[in-house]
Amino acid sequence: MTQQIAQWDVFEVALRGPKLGNPFLDATLDVVFRLGNRAVHTSGFYDGDDVWRVRFMPDTVGEWTYRTRSNIGELDGKSAGFSCTAPRAGMHGPVRVKNQFHFAHADGTPYLPFGTTCYAWTHQPLDMQAQTLATLKRSRFNKIRMGVFPKDYIYNNNEPLYPMFETDADGRQDFDRPNPKAFQHLDSQIGALRELGIEADIILFHPYDRWGYCTMGPKRDEQYLRYVVARLSAYANVWWSLANEYDFLLDVKPIEAWDRCFHVIEECDPHRHLRSIHNGNPNMNYDHRKPWVDHVCIQHWDVKRTVEWRQAYGKPVINDEPEYEGNIPRPWGNISAQELVHRFWVTTLRGGYAGHGETFMHPDDLLWWAKGGELRGESWKRIGFMRDLLEQDVRNGLTPYTSATNSAFSRVSGGQDGDVRYLYFGEHQPLQWAAGLPMEDGDFEIDLIDTWEMTIDRIEKAPLPISPPLRGVGGAIHSTGPEAAFGVRLPGKPWQAVRVRKKS
Amino acid sequence: MTQQIAQWDVFEVALRGPKLGNPFLDATLDVVFRLGNRAVHTSGFYDGDDVWRVRFMPDTVGEWTYRTRSNIGELDGKSAGFSCTAPRAGMHGPVRVKNQFHFAHADGTPYLPFGTTCYAWTHQPLDMQAQTLATLKRSRFNKIRMGVFPKDYIYNNNEPLYPMFETDADGRQDFDRPNPKAFQHLDSQIGALRELGIEADIILFHPYDRWGYCTMGPKRDEQYLRYVVARLSAYANVWWSLANEYDFLLDVKPIEAWDRCFHVIEECDPHRHLRSIHNGNPNMNYDHRKPWVDHVCIQHWDVKRTVEWRQAYGKPVINDEPEYEGNIPRPWGNISAQELVHRFWVTTLRGGYAGHGETFMHPDDLLWWAKGGELRGESWKRIGFMRDLLEQDVRNGLTPYTSATNSAFSRVSGGQDGDVRYLYFGEHQPLQWAAGLPMEDGDFEIDLIDTWEMTIDRIEKAPLPISPPLRGVGGAIHSTGPEAAFGVRLPGKPWQAVRVRKKS
Repeated sequence: MTQQIAQWDVFEVALRGPKLGNPFLDATLDVVFRLGNRAVHTSGFYDGDDVWRVRFMPDTVGEWTYRTRSNIGELDGKSAGFSCTAPRAGMHGPVRVKNQFHFAHADGTPYLPFGTTCYAWTHQPLDMQAQTLATLKRSRFNKIRMGVFPKDYIYNNNEPLYPMFETDADGRQDFDRPNPKAFQHLDSQIGALRELGIEADIILFHPYDRWGYCTMGPKRDEQYLRYVVARLSAYANVWWSLANEYDFLLDVKPIEAWDRCFHVIEECDPHRHLRSIHNGNPNMNYDHRKPWVDHVCIQHWDVKRTVEWRQAYGKPVINDEPEYEGNIPRPWGNISAQELVHRFWVTTLRGGYAGHGETFMHPDDLLWWAKGGELRGESWKRIGFMRDLLEQDVRNGLTPYTSATNSAFSRVSGGQDGDVRYLYFGEHQPLQWAAGLPMEDGDFEIDLIDTWEMTIDRIEKAPLPISPPLRGVGGAIHSTGPEAAFGVRLPGKPWQAVRVRKKS
Repeated sequence: MTQQIAQWDVFEVALRGPKLGNPFLDATLDVVFRLGNRAVHTSGFYDGDDVWRVRFMPDTVGEWTYRTRSNIGELDGKSAGFSCTAPRAGMHGPVRVKNQFHFAHADGTPYLPFGTTCYAWTHQPLDMQAQTLATLKRSRFNKIRMGVFPKDYIYNNNEPLYPMFETDADGRQDFDRPNPKAFQHLDSQIGALRELGIEADIILFHPYDRWGYCTMGPKRDEQYLRYVVARLSAYANVWWSLANEYDFLLDVKPIEAWDRCFHVIEECDPHRHLRSIHNGNPNMNYDHRKPWVDHVCIQHWDVKRTVEWRQAYGKPVINDEPEYEGNIPRPWGNISAQELVHRFWVTTLRGGYAGHGETFMHPDDLLWWAKGGELRGESWKRIGFMRDLLEQDVRNGLTPYTSATNSAFSRVSGGQDGDVRYLYFGEHQPLQWAAGLPMEDGDFEIDLIDTWEMTIDRIEKAPLPISPPLRGVGGAIHSTGPEAAFGVRLPGKPWQAVRVRKKS
């Protein structure tokens, strides 16, 4: 009987080869997968113990075949067929850009990123990794930023569970020989995230390093990227983040080196996962207009600028680090929960997406942002509440109201997707409001949302509040008519949002 | 006996003239005041009832003389002397720019602007004006933004107490004939503010007008400016604000017209009061680099940009409208008290100055921002607390720490004046801190300030918190050594500030 594999699952072939001097380098293993006239090229990888593997994520139901080509006889010319069947329940395929500024899974299911950050969680003791997965299951995050490599930074100095490369008796690593055990473990955690419906935003390089991973040089960087892509690309939930804080590595990886890394991934990833790169200095964004970048990653606290970034790059904007909830002495890691929740609402209602992280001092240096484990803050619950709310209504992504629509929207935030509108007032506390409400009257469901208290209360239409008068020559023209067909009454306190849905 | 006048008080000469067709235009009245070889030129003005007045604020103790010149015989060639004596207690003279980004009175007393806004308070019923003065006396504001003209805008539609120009039986105003009664009242209220130690930031034009004051045309604009300057310039507490929201008048007053207004004031103000102009659209700042502008007025909510504005213009920055505390449906008039207090701290510790306003809905439309009366909010007390605190220590103005000093200061705020340092954390809530504390150890008084609760608690030095590690090639260099000589422990909640003073 033909082997069966569900759409978007990992189809894997294992091939036993001969003992080679350096099996990572000495064997080539290229594979073509075919469905009718369609041919998809990928590569296998060495997984230790004289075993090579080929992984492939079929994106289409049907009868596929493959055939290998290798410079090693035992690996060459292997071929077979398999059936790709309908996806398992809850599997929607990889996330793609949709509607220019937004995302959706391959099957069309909207994907609104509500991500968190645990840079080195896969390098912690196994029981802590299990705890991280349990916490993720309980929380409502659907993306996690995580590094392939361990991290050497404050609160984050422990040795990794496994060295990422083979190590000799003197502890010297051989960057020509990845450690299959370390990568097998990474595979398995990426798979665990996929089963939780969580996208793995995989950081390929970062500067917080004492092991030499950020100075391997262009040749070994490329070997490493090809190895990681061959191993992981068949996992539907993979995103490629070229770097955390690429600009802090410009002395060893200039812009051309980063561009080259993007090109290597473009060349060898048959599944075309999302690609981006993350800055350190808020004024050092990579030029995300380059065609090999799928979405914009930003690190910036000034979240009311989200519309500027959309306009500058014309791509989806994810502000991974609008600062973290916490209390450590580093200024990027000590904002209040209320402020982080506020930054999520401002970012999202201005047509972007925000990222979470938690950096609370801990006697054993167990900070979620570095190691995972337990969430100790207050923002994650409100972010989960926000996700549940938006997923009820948002199908194509929120298009923000801007000051071109109404000057109010440089100060407050709001956006629309079809017949649903969201307004967020943040530090603003009007008793009455109109801007952003429908211009034509009709039958609407209006909800007042307390973003901190996590309450949703149905409210009624109210008379239009007073508008600034029209001005003629010599006076300001603030408005050319009523701002909306009706108004709403609000409680006059901060952190409120309003949702308006047209009754069908 | 020679007439005596205290330094910086108003010396006034009244001259009776003949009945003229239009006494405002038909008589010229120029005056030269002399002290030794020094000559100061000024002009008189018609004050109704065939009386012309000349006002002068002597800035130097000594024996002054004056002599008039006029095309009208009765007003021509009048001369006399007077003694300028030491200033009255509490009188420090007009405010000047000092140390490039800051202000001081003429006698050198530091002046840190903590201003509020009551655009049309002098046009309200007299009992309400008395209430405004009583409120100002109780609050700790030392500047008020106020218009010469009444205002026609939402919550602010009542007719002025007196028309600003003479009006015929049909209600038509004659822009060639100011109404002396209206201006006498304005004089008196400017004088009342001076006695309270409050600078009058006098707005000369604005777009919120149904009386035609913003479309009088260049010739009458100039007549009006010369009249106002002749009347008011002798009041030590006068500042000239060319406009509120000049950019909303560009259809009738293009940039050249505003430049001309500045030049007229330069030409006819012998006392050289501070001059600036205020924008409406946050992206439409006047080019404050022009040499006739003394300080920058800004309307912008994004107060962490204060250092940018200092650098762009190289002059003192006053953000008059970082939005108002209130709850009206206009987005510039409904932020929480906590947010406005926060914006004051951020602005001030980044080397600028902020302005207050209050816009709470009221059944009789009595909004402080428009009409004065009573303060109903919560921010004014905290702003007064802040003023009291800073006036204890700040002599030459706070020079902000910037991200060039330490990248933390793009996120948190801090500044230094000699041996005093202030840090403000706002939405940041670290348990430990170092950046901005002294680099050399010594004997310091350290205070923890809760900017909202208005408490000041002495705290002790603490060990330096952990710093990000030094990085070599291939890693980020975040720090080239310890951030400070010692650290502080903080309560881990928002809205905290720290003051550090060297013990003398």
